[in-house]
Amino acid sequence: MSGQNAIWLNGTRVESLPLPDRGLDFGDGVFETFLVHEGNPLFPGYHIDRLKQGLKTLRIPDCLDSIQSQLETAASEAKGIRWSALRLSVIRGPGPRGYRPSPSSAPRIVIYVSSLDRDCATMDRPAVLCVAELRLSDQPLLARIKHLNRLEQVMASVQAQSVDTEEAVMFDKAGHLTSVIAGNIFLVCHGELLTPVLVECGVAGTRRRLIIEKWAHEIGLKIRETRLSSAELFQADEVFLSNSLQTVRPIAKIGNKSWESHNVCKSLFQRFLEELP
Amino acid sequence: MSGQNAIWLNGTRVESLPLPDRGLDFGDGVFETFLVHEGNPLFPGYHIDRLKQGLKTLRIPDCLDSIQSQLETAASEAKGIRWSALRLSVIRGPGPRGYRPSPSSAPRIVIYVSSLDRDCATMDRPAVLCVAELRLSDQPLLARIKHLNRLEQVMASVQAQSVDTEEAVMFDKAGHLTSVIAGNIFLVCHGELLTPVLVECGVAGTRRRLIIEKWAHEIGLKIRETRLSSAELFQADEVFLSNSLQTVRPIAKIGNKSWESHNVCKSLFQRFLEELP
Repeated sequence: MSGQNAIWLNGTRVESLPLPDRGLDFGDGVFETFLVHEGNPLFPGYHIDRLKQGLKTLRIPDCLDSIQSQLETAASEAKGIRWSALRLSVIRGPGPRGYRPSPSSAPRIVIYVSSLDRDCATMDRPAVLCVAELRLSDQPLLARIKHLNRLEQVMASVQAQSVDTEEAVMFDKAGHLTSVIAGNIFLVCHGELLTPVLVECGVAGTRRRLIIEKWAHEIGLKIRETRLSSAELFQADEVFLSNSLQTVRPIAKIGNKSWESHNVCKSLFQRFLEELP
Repeated sequence: MSGQNAIWLNGTRVESLPLPDRGLDFGDGVFETFLVHEGNPLFPGYHIDRLKQGLKTLRIPDCLDSIQSQLETAASEAKGIRWSALRLSVIRGPGPRGYRPSPSSAPRIVIYVSSLDRDCATMDRPAVLCVAELRLSDQPLLARIKHLNRLEQVMASVQAQSVDTEEAVMFDKAGHLTSVIAGNIFLVCHGELLTPVLVECGVAGTRRRLIIEKWAHEIGLKIRETRLSSAELFQADEVFLSNSLQTVRPIAKIGNKSWESHNVCKSLFQRFLEELP
């Protein structure tokens, strides 16, 4: 992974953000991480749909036209680069002191683009995970959208790092499986594909939606969103994660439990490759 | 309330924050709002204690010496101003993409100072509140500290604004009274002062701590941190809120319920005045 290549604010190349901004002050905003292939953001409609939902939830004024055009501008400058990551944040912008947003505030669009060293057309090696000690808190109002309040993920990452793993499975307060830190999770159980239903917490991933609405069917698998326990996770025949930069990635190990078979994950990754231009 | 007067980053006057920063990307940091009286931050030890706890929880490297000196520098420039608000944020700083913080990251200290139009030596008029629809989520790991993930407060403020109130009482998932949006809450019941115990959520306010450890005793009242229900709130003889800029403020009304007596609140405000230099 190389460093930040470029930063844009409202369509202009910048190096800094004028202060104050409620994005910094309260995490008041939403974001998306696009995988960009030779200057083209992949599956942009899925990201834009989730952004739109997030803006509506947070009552941030609609700025989808600006988002679309700034996304294209920033991504197109990565044309010469095979793979890059583009993070687009929409933040509430400046406002008076206090939690209450100004109804007249103009949102700001911040884009970071970084080139990726990894070849995203090759499935990533199977991951070794721990179980996050932290339980995700329930907040149905903020579930499914990708907002900027991500301290739970930061804290779980700190813990995973402390036991020398790069990822962790996360459960909610009631003990239901939710996700991994940076992505969603899928179980293959008796030939069926299962993924946690996300009502109280968790982010509804764009690749999760592609798998649910499209790819699972195309590889001949039934898929179901449901509540899943720790026992069901550890009895699964195969387990994998999904996110925008890795698409799908096999899980080799969670704690002491190992999985050898990654066939469903491989088939889904193949479907991803077939979608590339 | 007048606008932003000055912004500092790591002790230098600035107008913007170099990007990227995990404070913006994930709300990865903590903050304090100091009431500044003629250049002197009030009760600094109480704020610094909470900051210290927050930095420890988030595993942000200790930078208390810098915090102290930058706080003094920024506050002293407000010497000619009777009352100002000073917001000090400690953010994780830049780091590689992804939730995992770099162990070598150097935190950044951001300070905003704004002069206040209101005379903070006069008790604010009684407040009219609604009941927040949003229930605060349980996250014991992040409870009590003042971190930057404040979307729940933002969303509750949006709701309060939609019913033309400036504040709201907030309950947790189990239906226990927690706080107001921007402060803590106290009930006077049969001559005893009660305030919600904060274990799963809520911010442990500096003025709340002053009342619990010092002021309640000094005005001759027993005080107890306990679990409180909605019924107990509405049966209370007196209700008031506390925060750093208003110290204590009477609550006149929550929904349809009104309170006429504000004597305990007035006595506590008197104690505050006696602490002023």
